[in-house]
Amino acid sequence: MDAEQLREYGHKMVDFIADYYKTIENFPVLSQVEPGYLRNLLPDSAPNQPDSFQHVLDGEVAQLILEFIRLHIQAKILPGVTHWQSPNYFAYYPSNSSVAGFVGEMLSAGLNIVGFSWITSPAATELEMIVLDWLAKMLKLPEDFLSAGQGGGVIQGTASEAVLVVLLAARDKVLRRVGKDALEKLVVYASDQTHSSLQKACQIAGIHPENCRLLKATSSTNYALSPEFLSETISQDLTIGLIPFFLCATVGTTSSTAVDPLLSLGKIAKSNGMWFHVDAAYAGSACVCPEFRHYMDGVEEADSFNMNAHKWFLTNFDCSALWVKDRSALVQALSTNPEFLKNKASQANMVVDYKDWQVPLGRRFRSLKLWMVLRLYGLENLQCYIRNHIKLAKHFENLIAQDPRFEVVTPRIFSLVCFRLLPVRNNESHGNKLNHQLLDAVNSTGSAFISHTVLSGKYILRFAVGAPLTEEKHVNAAWKVLQDKATSLLAESL
Amino acid sequence: MDAEQLREYGHKMVDFIADYYKTIENFPVLSQVEPGYLRNLLPDSAPNQPDSFQHVLDGEVAQLILEFIRLHIQAKILPGVTHWQSPNYFAYYPSNSSVAGFVGEMLSAGLNIVGFSWITSPAATELEMIVLDWLAKMLKLPEDFLSAGQGGGVIQGTASEAVLVVLLAARDKVLRRVGKDALEKLVVYASDQTHSSLQKACQIAGIHPENCRLLKATSSTNYALSPEFLSETISQDLTIGLIPFFLCATVGTTSSTAVDPLLSLGKIAKSNGMWFHVDAAYAGSACVCPEFRHYMDGVEEADSFNMNAHKWFLTNFDCSALWVKDRSALVQALSTNPEFLKNKASQANMVVDYKDWQVPLGRRFRSLKLWMVLRLYGLENLQCYIRNHIKLAKHFENLIAQDPRFEVVTPRIFSLVCFRLLPVRNNESHGNKLNHQLLDAVNSTGSAFISHTVLSGKYILRFAVGAPLTEEKHVNAAWKVLQDKATSLLAESL
Repeated sequence: MDAEQLREYGHKMVDFIADYYKTIENFPVLSQVEPGYLRNLLPDSAPNQPDSFQHVLDGEVAQLILEFIRLHIQAKILPGVTHWQSPNYFAYYPSNSSVAGFVGEMLSAGLNIVGFSWITSPAATELEMIVLDWLAKMLKLPEDFLSAGQGGGVIQGTASEAVLVVLLAARDKVLRRVGKDALEKLVVYASDQTHSSLQKACQIAGIHPENCRLLKATSSTNYALSPEFLSETISQDLTIGLIPFFLCATVGTTSSTAVDPLLSLGKIAKSNGMWFHVDAAYAGSACVCPEFRHYMDGVEEADSFNMNAHKWFLTNFDCSALWVKDRSALVQALSTNPEFLKNKASQANMVVDYKDWQVPLGRRFRSLKLWMVLRLYGLENLQCYIRNHIKLAKHFENLIAQDPRFEVVTPRIFSLVCFRLLPVRNNESHGNKLNHQLLDAVNSTGSAFISHTVLSGKYILRFAVGAPLTEEKHVNAAWKVLQDKATSLLAESL
Repeated sequence: MDAEQLREYGHKMVDFIADYYKTIENFPVLSQVEPGYLRNLLPDSAPNQPDSFQHVLDGEVAQLILEFIRLHIQAKILPGVTHWQSPNYFAYYPSNSSVAGFVGEMLSAGLNIVGFSWITSPAATELEMIVLDWLAKMLKLPEDFLSAGQGGGVIQGTASEAVLVVLLAARDKVLRRVGKDALEKLVVYASDQTHSSLQKACQIAGIHPENCRLLKATSSTNYALSPEFLSETISQDLTIGLIPFFLCATVGTTSSTAVDPLLSLGKIAKSNGMWFHVDAAYAGSACVCPEFRHYMDGVEEADSFNMNAHKWFLTNFDCSALWVKDRSALVQALSTNPEFLKNKASQANMVVDYKDWQVPLGRRFRSLKLWMVLRLYGLENLQCYIRNHIKLAKHFENLIAQDPRFEVVTPRIFSLVCFRLLPVRNNESHGNKLNHQLLDAVNSTGSAFISHTVLSGKYILRFAVGAPLTEEKHVNAAWKVLQDKATSLLAESL
């Protein structure tokens, strides 16, 4: 670790990354390589000596990294990259990068501390507590979620880890009450539109698969979970001696941004003594705007709330913000206290040790990037950022409405548009095939990347606006590609 | 995301980080702040507008980040940082940073892709497979662990996640055989020197706490797990109808770098149909040197093997390398297959989707930094790096041997020295107090940071050499502080 070498290498890498963003539209947004492409380009084993070590001996330090970038990164890695930061990226949900997020990540990598306990870097723990309080206030979360009381926020890597840790907290809380042999009686509830990470969390936590109730949500509720259906199911389960203990609701589902009715669901959860988790991984970001905040109404009933700052909030991956009302439930499920980690501050209960709020022991200094995003952009700019993407999604929706061959399938709420090419002669099965073909045709051009879902048996295309560089011209260009490919496919299928 | 702003900010941040490394010895290595220090320095909520937005309007982009660094990072954050990269850092185990690791992390943050499936960035999946094959070969792991067969490597965030995912794979494998209601009969074995992450993994996986056998290891085996003791315990458990299913052995325990006898333990595991996991989180790095490789002998009996490249292998945190012989066991325990993630390559089973090898869905492009470390340094330099630290640890051991007031408590194997100030008049309880006081006295100087453990009731000081910048002079200086503080304490205690 030579500071001057770090400076030289670092500057060259910054230039490479800045140039990458300047030219990002030149790359096919979805990588077009075939499986196994890289195996042919790299040697079978690591070098014994660095390839270009003579450069370092010659004092040509900068030359080494420039050659590495050209020969290895540009020639071998970039062709296999799917460019999530491209303005033509409309697949899944976005993964935002920003200048503040990027330099925050750099700083975290530079300091390279491991913040498992307060003492291993007090700033890491304290900044995380403060910044999650800031974000909670921006979202107008109830005060119970702030660190001043019994609750608080924590940065998890992903929403999957967020739902896992609260599920474990809830599981152990109920098992302490009813006895640990009752695991097989515990039941989890959510709609079938809930992210697959809930099911995975249940698998991990040992919840019996048949006790993971993914209740069917239909177009009649715009794919939101029906409180009546939930109530009935819980009653039936109680009758047969099962123990309902966890409800997960979503604000902005992955397939179609459906919003579950938090208030009614939360009341049902409360009256049954269940843990109520709200997953707003994607749509939570929009709720910093007053006009969208109402989608979170009822969050006051929740025991935990999650939003991913790394999706649509300019904070580089990974940064998933989780708040709980009762941090002791997390700590009871996840703490260990080995001798080699004991220290005065922890033993005296004077501090938070985030190791006890998460699965891993080690943790990065992730609050830096979120702090820099909040400070360097400020709330008003972040609101403008969200509103602009929603405006672009509305624009895309209007374009679809003007072409009678297409339909918007579910009401657009945030920045995702679910649409499809209408089936010819009402042949739904052929329609599904057609839309699948359209997806592949568009993605193989490399000029736009979209993804899909299935709702009520229909194959649907998803167009998610949210990449920081996306402008109206990119939306228009993607629409043009979609129309052209649709024209070709319809002609072929006649 | 403005490319030129990223360039300007990025250059300034690189300079800040390079300057940080140049001046890192000026900081107290263990942060000396009091709990809550940061709350007083930061506002209660995020700004509505960025504080210094006028600078951007004036075109003074670079000024903004410089001010941010000075006013916020230097003034408020750095005092609360415990400097893991300081050459005077000897606590816990190291968390290495390097130029290659740092620029690799920068590149990963710049591309900011989310590599859950092959298609979301083929290069991310394929580079990870290739680089873990490289590292497996450097460690001379059996061929079964390479990706060409039924096994393969994957980068987890931490060793905690590594042991959790293999425990889940093993749990589900045995439950598929004996039925899922047998969870309460499953038994896990390890020595009581095993890292606490095993116990946490058991908690998460729902293994009954009383079935987590942490077998006492004593000084008679240098704190290694006794195969005889293990065999006896397994026999007893079988007699009462329990189901032994998982054994965790360690190469280089956290307290004292104890090395469990892999070959004998592995044979016992195999003959009982148990999953055998080897945790070499810290000491695995040393095993790239032929003279230390024998500590891993018997790894051919293992089902999974883990080493943390982020500890002592110049790869910035986080990067925990896990290999398994049977990847299908991981995938069966951890896969989900929601419609919205389906794609041609995955459906055709042509590719690896690492989402099914880990807890979270999302994942960073972590192989970049490991690849850059291996390529830019090469095996021989990495071996020299390890040997130098071990030489420094030997040197420290020799210093202790020359001072009759101290003793080395367990044989030094790698770069950790376990030692203590000898109790006065054989008063062990006073001796423990004395060493605790010595630890606090040294750490509160800010000139060195060491940590502790307890072995057989004795309070032991741990001196782990492994920070990239540590040289002999730093070891000598730390020893001087230890001697001086010991002299004062002994004088006081007379």
